[in-house]
Amino acid sequence: MFDDISGEEAKQTLNFLLNAAVDVQMASTESIFIEKILSYARKIFHASAGSISMIEGNQLKFVTLQNDEVDIHHVIGKHKYIPLDTNSFAGYVAITGETLYIPDPYHIDADAPYKFNTLIDQETGYKTESLLAMPLQHPSEGIIGTFEILNPKDKYFHTLNIGIARNFSIIAAVSFINMHLRTSLQHSYLDTLERLGHVAEYKDEDTYQHIQRIRFSSQVIAEQMQTSKGFQEDIFHASAMHDMGKVGIPDHILNKPGKLDADEWNIMQTHAANGGSILKGSKSAILQMSERIAMSHHEKWNGQGYPNGIKGDEIPLEAQIVAVADVFDALTQKRVYKQAWPLNEALELIQHERGQHFAPAVVDAFFACKDKIIQIHRKHGFIIES
Amino acid sequence: MFDDISGEEAKQTLNFLLNAAVDVQMASTESIFIEKILSYARKIFHASAGSISMIEGNQLKFVTLQNDEVDIHHVIGKHKYIPLDTNSFAGYVAITGETLYIPDPYHIDADAPYKFNTLIDQETGYKTESLLAMPLQHPSEGIIGTFEILNPKDKYFHTLNIGIARNFSIIAAVSFINMHLRTSLQHSYLDTLERLGHVAEYKDEDTYQHIQRIRFSSQVIAEQMQTSKGFQEDIFHASAMHDMGKVGIPDHILNKPGKLDADEWNIMQTHAANGGSILKGSKSAILQMSERIAMSHHEKWNGQGYPNGIKGDEIPLEAQIVAVADVFDALTQKRVYKQAWPLNEALELIQHERGQHFAPAVVDAFFACKDKIIQIHRKHGFIIES
Repeated sequence: MFDDISGEEAKQTLNFLLNAAVDVQMASTESIFIEKILSYARKIFHASAGSISMIEGNQLKFVTLQNDEVDIHHVIGKHKYIPLDTNSFAGYVAITGETLYIPDPYHIDADAPYKFNTLIDQETGYKTESLLAMPLQHPSEGIIGTFEILNPKDKYFHTLNIGIARNFSIIAAVSFINMHLRTSLQHSYLDTLERLGHVAEYKDEDTYQHIQRIRFSSQVIAEQMQTSKGFQEDIFHASAMHDMGKVGIPDHILNKPGKLDADEWNIMQTHAANGGSILKGSKSAILQMSERIAMSHHEKWNGQGYPNGIKGDEIPLEAQIVAVADVFDALTQKRVYKQAWPLNEALELIQHERGQHFAPAVVDAFFACKDKIIQIHRKHGFIIES
Repeated sequence: MFDDISGEEAKQTLNFLLNAAVDVQMASTESIFIEKILSYARKIFHASAGSISMIEGNQLKFVTLQNDEVDIHHVIGKHKYIPLDTNSFAGYVAITGETLYIPDPYHIDADAPYKFNTLIDQETGYKTESLLAMPLQHPSEGIIGTFEILNPKDKYFHTLNIGIARNFSIIAAVSFINMHLRTSLQHSYLDTLERLGHVAEYKDEDTYQHIQRIRFSSQVIAEQMQTSKGFQEDIFHASAMHDMGKVGIPDHILNKPGKLDADEWNIMQTHAANGGSILKGSKSAILQMSERIAMSHHEKWNGQGYPNGIKGDEIPLEAQIVAVADVFDALTQKRVYKQAWPLNEALELIQHERGQHFAPAVVDAFFACKDKIIQIHRKHGFIIES
């Protein structure tokens, strides 16, 4: 293999690929990954432009176009899909698995199954002088897409590079599938978390909206408090499960139109510890946070809350935040046992409970971003202006 | 870089690494990944033995040992953890980030901070003549572990290989963290799915056991029917959510000790469609399957079931399977409204409903693996022998 290159070129390529491998693997999202893959593929050939397309059903979808010479921003949206057939270079490669080198796309053999689509050149002013199209071929999944390299420099275009590019395309396909699996898994995980949050409040009316208000408000307060990005993302998902333990509360207590008597109130209060116990023992950081929120969102800063009567910073920050968001929500929205309060009265109560029910720092953050929170309430429910 | 090697060696190494990169990225589990990484690291140096250890808190955990010459099976468990300090080669490398080449571990400079632990050599009969220890260094996470290569052949031990090995160790560290993130995500996802399954039945007694019986029995029937491995795994998780829709059923109907009247029965039946609607619209393949199961596990083969009265193979296979597992479970276990049936009577009913309530192929599979199912019932509950 690589018989026609010098040792010096092989050493350079080796060094290049080792560094590229690290950089590509460090990509945090699918789209960054795809941009990097194409960028390295272009570097191998010192090519000024290129594209990657992925198979979606019976179409090819262009997932990225890069061009160093002309602005292609306006054409990316227009040419997103082409049919998966042998009429195009990319389609031909995706179907046959062959590598296609076209020395001059404007003069193709009339017998060839594929034609050159000159539209992008016309719209951008770029001149495609030569073209290399290769399949993105996964060892077990088969061909998942193609990449095209436009105007590769002759000097870098020999057997070594075709060989490397073939290998590179396999590595890219494998990494892409791995990355895609992780993204799908992440979506599935967050989706399941969201359903877990909603299922607990399935019996209440207006539950979807309630949960949306709590998670967005909690996130906004956390952002105002300059917590880490990770904390802000986690509280968005974890706060949805704050009332998880309500699945264990009998309907006649949960939906009682009037005030609860002492026994009923005792049972109602068990929802905090119940929620904690449903959620406990997970390896998921989000579920661990949701356990702390479920357990402690009815604790009070002064130690007069439940279930454990802990106080001050014994109460996890995430639970301090959800406590404020949850009470503000309970006040401003109608419930089976009460009317909605006007905004100014609700705000007065939050302020009044600063250092009593609520953590002072959280109340301050709440007021600093209260316009955003009011906006969230308007979008996902309603609010009575004072 | 790589100044002291020939072009031929560089070409060979290039080819080797390109193939290795694909193979390593194709590893389906963390442990396969680690075995492959070590195996390739050893190949670079033509070394007969090696190990990888990962940092866990203030310890180093040996995650794999490989040795082509002697049996090391019996020592792997014994030397799993060593303290994370500079007394050992691996500890020194993990703390300092240096690469350590020890030409003769039995004669180390007395001033060196590290000592050679001769125990493994003594216990295995292997003779460690030389040793290379390198950090597994992640570009953003820092040092996550080390690998050691024992008795590398001199011929392959020059600057090229140290350079390659350093790069290789960075790629390995990045890939390992990526793989680990995916594994954690998978665990978190499955954990959340499991909680979603349980939360729906939180009000019933004996719910944990009930769900375990349904998921294991469904999986065993699916296996007996020679469905794909993926289907068998999915039904194990998805079947846990078959009664998800019960969160919408009032307690007094759900827990009524006697027979339901016509109105109550109508409400009870809504749990199938409710479950379907809670679970619908997900991108998660498992949640999609659980939607089909929740929706259709009370349909009957003859079209007399609910909610849609579909029949035969209009009913998704996964719902046909859960239908049998669920009825067998309901029969043999005590419920608030009934006693447990003896085993032979329950089996008779399943057989009697073959082609009526149940899909013939599922009933046949159920009987072919009924000993396994009875065992599952004994382990996760009880069964009255006939």
